[in-house]
Amino acid sequence: MTQFSAEEKRGIYRAIYERRDVRSNFLPTPVPDDVLARILDAAHHAPSVGFMQPWDFLVIRDESVRTKVRENFERTNRQAAAIYEGEQRNLYDNLKLGAIMEAPVNLCVTCDHQRTKGAGLGRQTNPSTDLYSTVCAVQNLWLAARAESLGAGWVSILDTESLKATLEIPEHVTLVAYLCIGYVSEFGSQPDLEKRGWEHREELANLIHYDRWNLRQSSASTIPAPLPSDPG
Amino acid sequence: MTQFSAEEKRGIYRAIYERRDVRSNFLPTPVPDDVLARILDAAHHAPSVGFMQPWDFLVIRDESVRTKVRENFERTNRQAAAIYEGEQRNLYDNLKLGAIMEAPVNLCVTCDHQRTKGAGLGRQTNPSTDLYSTVCAVQNLWLAARAESLGAGWVSILDTESLKATLEIPEHVTLVAYLCIGYVSEFGSQPDLEKRGWEHREELANLIHYDRWNLRQSSASTIPAPLPSDPG
Repeated sequence: MTQFSAEEKRGIYRAIYERRDVRSNFLPTPVPDDVLARILDAAHHAPSVGFMQPWDFLVIRDESVRTKVRENFERTNRQAAAIYEGEQRNLYDNLKLGAIMEAPVNLCVTCDHQRTKGAGLGRQTNPSTDLYSTVCAVQNLWLAARAESLGAGWVSILDTESLKATLEIPEHVTLVAYLCIGYVSEFGSQPDLEKRGWEHREELANLIHYDRWNLRQSSASTIPAPLPSDPG
Repeated sequence: MTQFSAEEKRGIYRAIYERRDVRSNFLPTPVPDDVLARILDAAHHAPSVGFMQPWDFLVIRDESVRTKVRENFERTNRQAAAIYEGEQRNLYDNLKLGAIMEAPVNLCVTCDHQRTKGAGLGRQTNPSTDLYSTVCAVQNLWLAARAESLGAGWVSILDTESLKATLEIPEHVTLVAYLCIGYVSEFGSQPDLEKRGWEHREELANLIHYDRWNLRQSSASTIPAPLPSDPG
């Protein structure tokens, strides 16, 4: 068990702080299969409840499939936009939220609730833990992608039932994430939604409680403001 | 936008491959506040739907609170064990699944469904996306912890309603993860559940589909078996 070197440690913190939910700036450059294999294997090494490994990965490059997914996104996004008005609607309409055709690879990550691996260990109290495991796989993939200079964008504005039909995903399988993946011309220095004024980042201190909800002071010691620029 | 150096890249892949769901080998060594601040800030930099940042973090060190959580775990685990019989029951009874008192810090990560940040962007089609964002935060924290030589174990065998009462978590907030955190004497070379024969790791190739569910060959190219020992 060797400790991480300072540079290895910087690698993990860089991936965390420099990861972006990318919707624009995708390049048409193909993603080599060995790079795809590495980020998929990173996903496959996520934690899973009872070692259940409930995930599957659909690698989508076919144009006709992606065209259907784009139509799904555009239809769903028109409906989603309708709840906003005035200035907020203008802002929404100018956000780039999908990149289904521009990104050379799309990835769909699913959760098979009927997978028997793990024999149900850890799933009796909360059946959602298999979904949580699947999301851990997505996050592993996203961070590995960043280290490979690949952008990834998680498109959640999709009609899931229609998307499952397009991809022929069985009933008992939940579609968890639909991702656009590819090399990019740049990674933003801050999240798109922050840069465009949709939302700002909360202060970490406002989200920390000690021992019980809403106890904002610890009897032991209170956590200082982090210095993200210096991962130590 | 600088590329990752080979060593920085090794850092992220090491964190992914060497991360363990740790339930034993915790050392009593206190976790310094600046290290806790770094892993919590890593969590806070997870992606979130609409930049909603729905998470909160409870840092639990108080002995009396942890004693109640341990009692909850032991009660719940006795019930969970009851579904297994024979050899599998013996195996189950010998698994170490909690480390609530041994780990010097416990962390609870929650999801506030009523948080208004993000103004609902991306949440109309799937209301679970806020839970998914919270799980991404957990995975960021877990990987950063590994790089800091901190073990983390996600204990899911807990009666969630009773745990929420102990921690005074409001009704509208979902308790997503309860983690045991601390320095460890060693990280296993493979997952505990694999080492003890509870379950084995699936072949990645069996989990990859191309363009549509169950298409196992790509018209473009088929992804080779990854070489995890060589992250490139």
